[in-house]
Amino acid sequence: MRGGAITGLLFDVFGTVVDWRTGVARDVAGFFDPLDVDVDSHAFADAWRGKYQPAMKGVRDGARGYVALDTLHLENLETILAEFGLADRVDQEGRAWLNRAWERLPPWPDSVPGLTALKSRYAIATCSNGSIALMLGLARYGGLPWDALLGAEIAQSYKRKPEVYLKSVEAMGYAPDEVMMVAAHNDDLFAAQDAGLRTAFIPRPTEHGPDQTSDLEPTGKWDVVADDLLDLAQQLSD
Amino acid sequence: MRGGAITGLLFDVFGTVVDWRTGVARDVAGFFDPLDVDVDSHAFADAWRGKYQPAMKGVRDGARGYVALDTLHLENLETILAEFGLADRVDQEGRAWLNRAWERLPPWPDSVPGLTALKSRYAIATCSNGSIALMLGLARYGGLPWDALLGAEIAQSYKRKPEVYLKSVEAMGYAPDEVMMVAAHNDDLFAAQDAGLRTAFIPRPTEHGPDQTSDLEPTGKWDVVADDLLDLAQQLSD
Repeated sequence: MRGGAITGLLFDVFGTVVDWRTGVARDVAGFFDPLDVDVDSHAFADAWRGKYQPAMKGVRDGARGYVALDTLHLENLETILAEFGLADRVDQEGRAWLNRAWERLPPWPDSVPGLTALKSRYAIATCSNGSIALMLGLARYGGLPWDALLGAEIAQSYKRKPEVYLKSVEAMGYAPDEVMMVAAHNDDLFAAQDAGLRTAFIPRPTEHGPDQTSDLEPTGKWDVVADDLLDLAQQLSD
Repeated sequence: MRGGAITGLLFDVFGTVVDWRTGVARDVAGFFDPLDVDVDSHAFADAWRGKYQPAMKGVRDGARGYVALDTLHLENLETILAEFGLADRVDQEGRAWLNRAWERLPPWPDSVPGLTALKSRYAIATCSNGSIALMLGLARYGGLPWDALLGAEIAQSYKRKPEVYLKSVEAMGYAPDEVMMVAAHNDDLFAAQDAGLRTAFIPRPTEHGPDQTSDLEPTGKWDVVADDLLDLAQQLSD
């Protein structure tokens, strides 16, 4: 690996540490099946996630002040329910429950043992666009052993803005080149690298389902490319 | 206990979870002993901590923007070194090392098992005047299993300002009356109670050494009074 020692690791969470598509689809099916409403729950999850990047654009561009991702998720849910012709089947309480599907996402099988192994040597923290409350819910749901919950909320902005990485690094008390960003998304790593962080790529080839075409391979010069978080722990201990 | 169910616990840290006086005195002695400089290390620790509340006053009053406690600690260290006639014995590197004594504080014996027991049922987070970096250092030093590091830095203010409690509660995604503040200091609990939180008092009768006179007993109507964090876990599970 290039350069000196690292002291901390920052992690993308949705897709990198947890399987949002499986978790959201499971709760969408769990909500609509008892109502005898026929929904393609994976298409619903994909459509909901599809509104994710556009929703953050206004905050990134400064057109809108920082709004927590929980609120953006709820706004996007309203849109998706209308698109799926389901707006009149879900009351406010149901919408709140569905929105919290984003706090009930299963970790990938290697996530908890991998993070636990990494934590024995490095400070590990989230650098997610999710709010602290969302990260807290996910951590307690999946047993993710974070040292700290950083990212968008403490920076009051969204990735891939450089300040999200830099304020997370600063909050840990470290320098950018002492910290490695770990993500399954090449664009996240390009932004982190531009901000001066080290980078590790972990492919998650089924994040978007069986027909995924994006982020199957590293497309940048990353410090580490690992099969999963256990392999990352192994490579960093060599 | 009064009211409905609680979902989260917020903790004061210095004095309540970690023994700052023992830890700081140990590192002060460890620094000066090899230099053959005779210092009353416990008096040094007490004097340093004595500057703590006055230093935060400017931030609380708005005379000064938010400055992390690490910086206030370093400013106070300069003052104490001068008062102890030691200013010319400690270079910048030594001052930085001494200042990080606040990240090397031993947990009280019940802290790690007590927090671990409490974490199995409740989200547990710091609500300290220490920065995220300081809390991260302490957690990794002592193995404190926090779910989240909240408090002064996310509120950009210092206890006992109500926003420090309220922004910590909000960051967890909870309502104030779902959260219990745990502290060894009655004034911390009065402020938390005024902000709408539940309260638990844990005496730490040797926080200030063998001759401590303050906070030996609860002086308010707290929801729970416990001998230590293990007893708190036991009482909350009843």
